[in-house]
Amino acid sequence: MAKEQLRIFKIGGKVVEDADQLSAFLESFARLKGNKILVHGGGKWVSEMSRRLGIEVKMIDGRRITDADTLEVVKMMLAGVANKNVVSKLQGYGCNAIGLTGADGNAILAEKRPLKNGIDYGFVGDVKSVNREVIRNLINTGLVPVFAAMTHNGRGDLFNTNADTIASRVAVGMSKDFEVELNYCFELNGVLKDIDNPASVIHEINQNNYAQLKAEGVINSGMIPKIDNAFDALAEGVKQVRIMNSKHIIKLAEGQNQVGTTILN
Amino acid sequence: MAKEQLRIFKIGGKVVEDADQLSAFLESFARLKGNKILVHGGGKWVSEMSRRLGIEVKMIDGRRITDADTLEVVKMMLAGVANKNVVSKLQGYGCNAIGLTGADGNAILAEKRPLKNGIDYGFVGDVKSVNREVIRNLINTGLVPVFAAMTHNGRGDLFNTNADTIASRVAVGMSKDFEVELNYCFELNGVLKDIDNPASVIHEINQNNYAQLKAEGVINSGMIPKIDNAFDALAEGVKQVRIMNSKHIIKLAEGQNQVGTTILN
Repeated sequence: MAKEQLRIFKIGGKVVEDADQLSAFLESFARLKGNKILVHGGGKWVSEMSRRLGIEVKMIDGRRITDADTLEVVKMMLAGVANKNVVSKLQGYGCNAIGLTGADGNAILAEKRPLKNGIDYGFVGDVKSVNREVIRNLINTGLVPVFAAMTHNGRGDLFNTNADTIASRVAVGMSKDFEVELNYCFELNGVLKDIDNPASVIHEINQNNYAQLKAEGVINSGMIPKIDNAFDALAEGVKQVRIMNSKHIIKLAEGQNQVGTTILN
Repeated sequence: MAKEQLRIFKIGGKVVEDADQLSAFLESFARLKGNKILVHGGGKWVSEMSRRLGIEVKMIDGRRITDADTLEVVKMMLAGVANKNVVSKLQGYGCNAIGLTGADGNAILAEKRPLKNGIDYGFVGDVKSVNREVIRNLINTGLVPVFAAMTHNGRGDLFNTNADTIASRVAVGMSKDFEVELNYCFELNGVLKDIDNPASVIHEINQNNYAQLKAEGVINSGMIPKIDNAFDALAEGVKQVRIMNSKHIIKLAEGQNQVGTTILN
């Protein structure tokens, strides 16, 4: 029997933290037919609230050092404010959302990241496994899981985990049950040939043209890790990865499919 | 066919906010066999964080006036810190908890409380209905719902709602599907004949002895609204209400049933 489709969207803090952008995104997300999951970040709110509470914000290579005080702020702003804003707004658009962290339903197990180059990232979790039975049961009862970027170790500890990583691991995990499309939403229209020209979207990247595009220096170096991660997800069973502008979800809601950059094996 | 049993426990902020008390409670809660739901408060944390953030704390007759800034703190401390601490600790004790507000899964619909005696309570919701299908589905897939004391109106707005009220409304709502036992946990051993004697627990209150106990002035006036609410829940289908010491949940976990004050029709 053919697998059902499941679409996973990841939005970052920039969308979540702007009330108008968030409402516009969620209104279209709610209109999408079929099985779906939303994963969200909200890191700027964590930094802002940390500063308000006098907690030092420490980042190394864009990764947050999460000490015990910062973990409390992550619970407050990601699992609390961001997740409940998204869920309540989706309910307002008629989408039966249910907010989750990796601890809820034991959905995403992780372990504390080991020291790397002597750096202790604190309460940061590397994903070990995704509980596809629990997530599938929620979807099958008509619910739309909305993940805040937190995980747990099953021994009582919560962790901060990168939202891109959660989206990718959930996509891979759910690929055993569904034909999964993973959509990374950000502020650009996709992978651009010319970073200054928003119309220069490369519509499709596959194993054949990727090496050539890289050799020609067409792809911005900042995009390469994202695309490499996309190929990793494809290798592990995800059907399609897309990098797109969060504002263009309205096109998907209206049935267009030529949106952003599609990455295929 | 006989209905299955469902046990609902409500714990207040005093238990949630004390790490040792919380762990002790949750360890026993996790050991309880059968269907169960936990409802928690956490109001002291809301007040403390409000003060840290320079937000005025306003209470009238023990009810919090929830302005827009206070609502954010309720999301942070109840749906964020308190709920995720409870869920992750329960996971550590082998209980497959899932944290919810009334918005998640559209579990509890409410409407903003109308002005009472000219007082605007702000973002405070009065419960309109409980979505027993969603809650039953979660229970039937082996999950243990853990409710933070928040509700929504289905139009995008979240509300602060009294945790005792949520426990009572969920108990009544689930009575159509289950034989529901509702347990209010607090710091006393139950309804006491002598407030200074913790051993003076009245084991059972029913319609027959309640009038007499009140007439004799045996029941402390502060307990009367709680007992009246318990009788209301019984009248609406709840099988049994108990008022007990949160520390005595270990007795229930060990199979004792003579705990606290049982209120029966």
